[in-house]
Amino acid sequence: MSKSPEEEHPQKAVGWAARDPSGFLSPFKFSRRANGDNDVTIRILYCGICHSDLHCIRNDWASSVYPMVPGHEIAGVVTEVGCYVTKFKVGDKAGLGCFVGSCRSCDNCAQDLENYCQKNILTYNSVYYDGSVNYGGFSDIIVVDQHFVISFPDNLLLEAAAPLLCAGITVYSPMKYFGFGEPGKHLGVVGLGGLGHMAVKFGKAFGLKITVISTSASKEKEALERLGADSFLISRDPDQMQAAIGTMDGILDTVSANHSLQPLLGLLKTNGKLIMVGAPDKPFEVPVFPLLMGRKLVAGSGTGGLKETQEMVDFAGKHNITADVEVVSMDYVNTAMERLAKGDIKYRFVVDVGNTLTVS
Amino acid sequence: MSKSPEEEHPQKAVGWAARDPSGFLSPFKFSRRANGDNDVTIRILYCGICHSDLHCIRNDWASSVYPMVPGHEIAGVVTEVGCYVTKFKVGDKAGLGCFVGSCRSCDNCAQDLENYCQKNILTYNSVYYDGSVNYGGFSDIIVVDQHFVISFPDNLLLEAAAPLLCAGITVYSPMKYFGFGEPGKHLGVVGLGGLGHMAVKFGKAFGLKITVISTSASKEKEALERLGADSFLISRDPDQMQAAIGTMDGILDTVSANHSLQPLLGLLKTNGKLIMVGAPDKPFEVPVFPLLMGRKLVAGSGTGGLKETQEMVDFAGKHNITADVEVVSMDYVNTAMERLAKGDIKYRFVVDVGNTLTVS
Repeated sequence: MSKSPEEEHPQKAVGWAARDPSGFLSPFKFSRRANGDNDVTIRILYCGICHSDLHCIRNDWASSVYPMVPGHEIAGVVTEVGCYVTKFKVGDKAGLGCFVGSCRSCDNCAQDLENYCQKNILTYNSVYYDGSVNYGGFSDIIVVDQHFVISFPDNLLLEAAAPLLCAGITVYSPMKYFGFGEPGKHLGVVGLGGLGHMAVKFGKAFGLKITVISTSASKEKEALERLGADSFLISRDPDQMQAAIGTMDGILDTVSANHSLQPLLGLLKTNGKLIMVGAPDKPFEVPVFPLLMGRKLVAGSGTGGLKETQEMVDFAGKHNITADVEVVSMDYVNTAMERLAKGDIKYRFVVDVGNTLTVS
Repeated sequence: MSKSPEEEHPQKAVGWAARDPSGFLSPFKFSRRANGDNDVTIRILYCGICHSDLHCIRNDWASSVYPMVPGHEIAGVVTEVGCYVTKFKVGDKAGLGCFVGSCRSCDNCAQDLENYCQKNILTYNSVYYDGSVNYGGFSDIIVVDQHFVISFPDNLLLEAAAPLLCAGITVYSPMKYFGFGEPGKHLGVVGLGGLGHMAVKFGKAFGLKITVISTSASKEKEALERLGADSFLISRDPDQMQAAIGTMDGILDTVSANHSLQPLLGLLKTNGKLIMVGAPDKPFEVPVFPLLMGRKLVAGSGTGGLKETQEMVDFAGKHNITADVEVVSMDYVNTAMERLAKGDIKYRFVVDVGNTLTVS
């Protein structure tokens, strides 16, 4: 008979878990494995809330296993290191994102693209190599192979840096790969949420011209004045859209809701790139003529590998880039999820795990 | 009152034209402009039949104007050159493809991408700068600005080289642009028609591994033994498709009929590129997860610029690449169009204009 989550491993742990597709989170006692020779144990101080956490706790992708402790934008302090650990020492600021394992031997892993490894292991709602269930960052401690741990520079506030590990790398990686990591180009950013606001910040640090594309005018002032975007385009305004035709080298589309790509393709110049980082559940309709008539492309990108994630965090440190966050207590998390579902957040919830996680 | 096609210009010309959306072609008397200072006059010897000719004569794209002389894979001999013409002399083998004009001043034109110029002028079913209607290659002579004329190397048979100017450049250009112009990569080619068979030939000359992807086994022997493809994949065979998952760096999709992209995306490795050169009339459904989970892209490409078209013809000359053609007489053209509509051609019809064009 298999052991209970609480007795499975030697290190006691506490967190908040969803028990069923209602997604309602409540205190949960479980355990973490002993810190192995290559492992780092992190005392979790902050954990961001990503929209995919909401999808997972509610079983929107029909792949959820309960009880589930979500959270994959994890930041904290190293409390123990294994004898083979070279990258970290006790007391270091460290974190992890979407992955806690990958095969380390496939073509993807060999190219530092663990995010595309077919056998990678997600931070939660997954099973580790030892057969035990992985639990995420809404918890007090986590034990992770050093390869999957990211070091934070001292100048970044941990609560605002935690979202770099998913929202940050999700926009940084495709910007670099598709040629938007250097000055001079014009990039549209569709959607100004957790991902979109990071894209504006990285884009300006790269020296791009950034146009935020949104369905409503309500975010214009904030996009331009607070985040530093160069211009703002209301996608529901036909005159504005007409005037912007053929002006952009690329568009980073962060919107998960189903929407039409045709107007966006029209905004692109010849050789323009429409890069999807949101994950709508229905296929997109892509008209072929706009692609043919300007050698345009529609691409997707999902998070990033560990090497690039560290590079991104170091870049963020150098340019002082973090997420705009609303820090909430652990017992606010169900309310935060409700607000996130309605888009009522600028721009990322981060749970203050270190100070507010309690299990009675 | 405007002049008739026969009286509009000083040079008498004869061709075969469609008069209505039946697409039926019959003899037609018209005229060509006097050879200008920058013009080249070509006596047309051969003209290929492209699937888009069929769409145009039948008004499938609802943009046809009649009478229409189709044909845009034109090869012949120079009979007159203007005083500013430097690239050609009388007696040269020369030809032209899809375009007879472009603005010469936009960003696209400045980058030798006249094919993406918003103001380019198609070889037929279009109006020239002087306001006169353009007529295509199913005719005895044509007058063209030298910029849009391509020189043929002596070693290529003109009847087999004519299709290079549309079918050839349509596959060559994206193969080069998307990184398949050099050895080592694995490219799938969907559809083995006029475009597909050229893609196999160029792909092998570039040093690629080529897999032809087809709905039926009937073309396997020909693809492997005659055209030199490395392997053949039947897209309707689930076992074959399963075995090929994640094996290709790119896929060039030449099929104009509507079809599902999801199985093709599955064949691609991480960073794989699905390049569409056919023009289905309905939008494609593109599932987003396969793009996100491997940083894959779906792109389009349409023909090529003049500089690259000349480069392609020169490359073809060096590697002795031409189309596999069935040469037919002018009065067979209506039958050829019927056969083309049914896919009954290996792989390109070319009309022997020089020897068989007669107007009673």
